[in-house]
Amino acid sequence: MPGSRTFRMENPEMFQLSIDRLKMRGVEITDIAEITYNLQKPYVKDLTMEICVENVKKVILKREVQHAILVGIDLDMLAEKKLLSEPLQTIVESDLSLFGVDEIVALAIVNVYGSIGMTNFGYVDKLKPGIIGHLDNEGKKDGRVNTFLDDIVGAIAASAASSIAHNYLK
Amino acid sequence: MPGSRTFRMENPEMFQLSIDRLKMRGVEITDIAEITYNLQKPYVKDLTMEICVENVKKVILKREVQHAILVGIDLDMLAEKKLLSEPLQTIVESDLSLFGVDEIVALAIVNVYGSIGMTNFGYVDKLKPGIIGHLDNEGKKDGRVNTFLDDIVGAIAASAASSIAHNYLK
Amino acid sequence: MPGSRTFRMENPEMFQLSIDRLKMRGVEITDIAEITYNLQKPYVKDLTMEICVENVKKVILKREVQHAILVGIDLDMLAEKKLLSEPLQTIVESDLSLFGVDEIVALAIVNVYGSIGMTNFGYVDKLKPGIIGHLDNEGKKDGRVNTFLDDIVGAIAASAASSIAHNYLK
Amino acid sequence: MPGSRTFRMENPEMFQLSIDRLKMRGVEITDIAEITYNLQKPYVKDLTMEICVENVKKVILKREVQHAILVGIDLDMLAEKKLLSEPLQTIVESDLSLFGVDEIVALAIVNVYGSIGMTNFGYVDKLKPGIIGHLDNEGKKDGRVNTFLDDIVGAIAASAASSIAHNYLK
Repeated sequence: MPGSRTFRMENPEMFQLSIDRLKMRGVEITDIAEITYNLQKPYVKDLTMEICVENVKKVILKREVQHAILVGIDLDMLAEKKLLSEPLQTIVESDLSLFGVDEIVALAIVNVYGSIGMTNFGYVDKLKPGIIGHLDNEGKKDGRVNTFLDDIVGAIAASAASSIAHNYLK
Repeated sequence: MPGSRTFRMENPEMFQLSIDRLKMRGVEITDIAEITYNLQKPYVKDLTMEICVENVKKVILKREVQHAILVGIDLDMLAEKKLLSEPLQTIVESDLSLFGVDEIVALAIVNVYGSIGMTNFGYVDKLKPGIIGHLDNEGKKDGRVNTFLDDIVGAIAASAASSIAHNYLK
Repeated sequence: MPGSRTFRMENPEMFQLSIDRLKMRGVEITDIAEITYNLQKPYVKDLTMEICVENVKKVILKREVQHAILVGIDLDMLAEKKLLSEPLQTIVESDLSLFGVDEIVALAIVNVYGSIGMTNFGYVDKLKPGIIGHLDNEGKKDGRVNTFLDDIVGAIAASAASSIAHNYLK
Repeated sequence: MPGSRTFRMENPEMFQLSIDRLKMRGVEITDIAEITYNLQKPYVKDLTMEICVENVKKVILKREVQHAILVGIDLDMLAEKKLLSEPLQTIVESDLSLFGVDEIVALAIVNVYGSIGMTNFGYVDKLKPGIIGHLDNEGKKDGRVNTFLDDIVGAIAASAASSIAHNYLK
């Protein structure tokens, strides 16, 4: 039975640490699940927030996702502390629209969930619903950088939506 | 002048043939350019349809894009002629939402234009503006299959938008 | 328990059909598992062919992988029957080195398994070990086209290697 | 002359800065060009080191590539200064084989050059020819981290090889 074993393998400490790191930056699992809910509700009529929360957690169990969370949040925080070298410091601090490494790190999450994850990510990256818009605005304030985090949150929400689509649509 | 050399290199017959193939399936360059215009207008204030048409053409000059057009349109037409094997015939004919090879072929186009291309593609793939929505609806009619074409058109429009962003934003 | 449910969900008929389609084109699961074995043996000392076969099967359980198999084999067979339109017919028939849609379809498989899958795929795509080299040579004979199949086989082998790495390396 | 217009557009300071940053970490353009030469020599008989150097420079003119260089080298140097948070600090310092964000950042470079770039990257990432092997070994020494840099160098070399293939093969 592949699943139960996978569950054991992908270690619980890293899962908890990833959740804690997101929380520390102001992101709750339910904030992400809400975006997933709105993405998938039109297609899955019996969708509940509980299912969305469960699927967001399943996404965060993946090693690729945990690593992307760690790298992205570290880069944001290093930018807040002005520890990046120039011109990268200015680019990340100002969330320059032509900077694409943030989306690339998010892609590492989304790729694992196939092409539905990818189109959903593009969509939320542009419309910035819920917590994503909040992070984007917060990142414009002095001393706060969310350049990588908003993309990572969008990628997790989009991936959970894709996971639901693959399990609940026939 | 980059174009002239690029043009020589990436042969003009294949460019014209790709344009003709799109036209044969009901897609004009201006239809694609219109989507590009709407995507990029909010960010580039002096944007004109002429610039968009030029950038759509630049995208179609790329070999990867020409190949994706040829493969996608052939698969749609083979499905119309019931020449795919089952269950692929039914999957492509009905544009099954969990089928992702169409988006994957479109990704071959979008990848070349970096992460802005990718998020724009996700966005239009979901909202289906202009000709994309038209193709999507037309594909639901008996005897007509646009499963690959609508994604390819979205990918070209998104790539042209990305190309404009990289040239006109600082 | 996510696994057992995933197992149920991703339907068994499509799994069997994918295996049969590969066999019909001369590819046994053990042929693919052998490539996986050679890729991963240097890193996992207790690796057995049995583990490799199990992981190749796990890869083929994924819907994205099944769809890529169906599309790729159909395109090869349509080319054998001269049913593609020109110039695509000639491009696929001759396995033109600058044609990249075959690798793109294979990427749809590999992406699901993260970046280890991707580098392993690049490696086998270039060295063509075992059945991949056999398919490549066979595809050069009159009347036989394996343009998509050799990449798909490489992608499945590389993905299984990645899956093993994620489960057996700490 | 494609370069001159592209050059104006995608600013020369960032190009020079990227070259300088690579040199500061021990990587010369000719080191990268040598890998490109060995990758492409079997396919392009008149290939010279001069052509390879020119194509490596063309790759580094791209904004995506410059950004990947800046982010990757900064992460390596921050790890050397123990400025990443745990467990990321240990993961990057030890170049953990299951960490994939380094390959993902490299993919941002390679994607721009289509599927030939991608397979070449997988190949050099596994075989580690020339400067890549040197960086990999150097990174195992105390106080030195090249976790991101070796992948970035491989990606630039592979992209230049792809660029040559597209221009010199028919």
